[in-house]
Amino acid sequence: MSGTTRIIDIGESLFDDNKRRAEALRAGLSARGVLMVDLMGSPGSGKTSLLLETLRRLPAGIRAAVIEGDLDSTVDADAVQDAGWDAVQIRTGGYCHLDAAMVSAGLEKLGFQGPADRPYDLVFVENIGNLVCTGQSDVGAQLRVAHLSRPEGDDKPAKYPVMFRNAHVLALTKSDYDAFAGPGGPLAPFDADAVRARARFLNPEIRIFQTSCRTGEGLDEWTAFIAERLRSCRLGAGR
Amino acid sequence: MSGTTRIIDIGESLFDDNKRRAEALRAGLSARGVLMVDLMGSPGSGKTSLLLETLRRLPAGIRAAVIEGDLDSTVDADAVQDAGWDAVQIRTGGYCHLDAAMVSAGLEKLGFQGPADRPYDLVFVENIGNLVCTGQSDVGAQLRVAHLSRPEGDDKPAKYPVMFRNAHVLALTKSDYDAFAGPGGPLAPFDADAVRARARFLNPEIRIFQTSCRTGEGLDEWTAFIAERLRSCRLGAGR
Repeated sequence: MSGTTRIIDIGESLFDDNKRRAEALRAGLSARGVLMVDLMGSPGSGKTSLLLETLRRLPAGIRAAVIEGDLDSTVDADAVQDAGWDAVQIRTGGYCHLDAAMVSAGLEKLGFQGPADRPYDLVFVENIGNLVCTGQSDVGAQLRVAHLSRPEGDDKPAKYPVMFRNAHVLALTKSDYDAFAGPGGPLAPFDADAVRARARFLNPEIRIFQTSCRTGEGLDEWTAFIAERLRSCRLGAGR
Repeated sequence: MSGTTRIIDIGESLFDDNKRRAEALRAGLSARGVLMVDLMGSPGSGKTSLLLETLRRLPAGIRAAVIEGDLDSTVDADAVQDAGWDAVQIRTGGYCHLDAAMVSAGLEKLGFQGPADRPYDLVFVENIGNLVCTGQSDVGAQLRVAHLSRPEGDDKPAKYPVMFRNAHVLALTKSDYDAFAGPGGPLAPFDADAVRARARFLNPEIRIFQTSCRTGEGLDEWTAFIAERLRSCRLGAGR
């Protein structure tokens, strides 16, 4: 009797498995008219601040919730809950990005259990702070948002192209830093036009918003865009 | 005749392989009195700026070179070379951190070929901008430095503990941001004492420096520390 050798190509099989799971998750949400938004960017790029401002400005009647991803702590979920919104905190230990399985578990905790359950209209996923790995993993969201803050510098699209290629939207956050200068010049020199041009070179379809949670710049336009996407998602589900 | 099944545990075996390679690399550098320093932190945390200031302030006669890691571009290697220092740029495509094999290849390009070659005394590795993955991979350096900038926020040790556990040194960069305030309060609120306490809770041995490349705060102290480490490394090699 001869033995059998089964081959498992870990990398590809894990990747394909996540992709299939993400596509099924996205299809299931779209069929119910639920919009899920994946918020990505470096640590400290302003994801949580922009998220809290967005929740505050959403048209009344939209039921929104948040899935927070971090290596450890409940800092961000606490902030979301303190602001009056439901949140689930995923703690990954050392894992560097969320994947579709983790987000599925988060959705279940939020009450998305049966295929017809629709406890929320809009779910934000605040991914691990990581400009590299999160851009390479599909969590099943219909809308992928990259955040880039002024103090990070304007060379980031050149150095981290994968994120800018894979995002649907780019939020240029902390635009108010432009107003500050110290000895030797601007506090956070940032050529926003060069960033826009480089991002569009990598990804011609990318939508770009410039925002500041301090001055309020761009927040209404940004929130209107999210609300409009949710409306389209609902109309699509009704078709 | 029965078949044979060979089992390869990819994760562990890759991990062990890198660890062995990193330890051999470190031992080889230490035996020659060469100090290698791994610079880690988020994108935009100020690694390149602090590196350039350090190179400029090093005591005369130290032969230093830089291995730059990025997903794409030669932005940082260009900056190092423009400042008059030798650099190698490693472009990883999408890979999220450097490992010992990549750094070995960089050292070879710098002229570390035979076991007695000593073209430089001090090699800085500027790792991929990533507060998560770089802290989990040993590149073979004797000194691991985590960078955390003011605008990233003071909650980072709680949210990204792995980096702060594994670094020997923490550089609190962009300290000059403290002097700026906008409508509604400080531009970049940051409780440095809380960060120090949290970092020391995670890692009692960690050395902490506070730096600003704009005002010059902490740069002489920091550079003296690096020079002293290099001196110890040389003395150790002579034993």
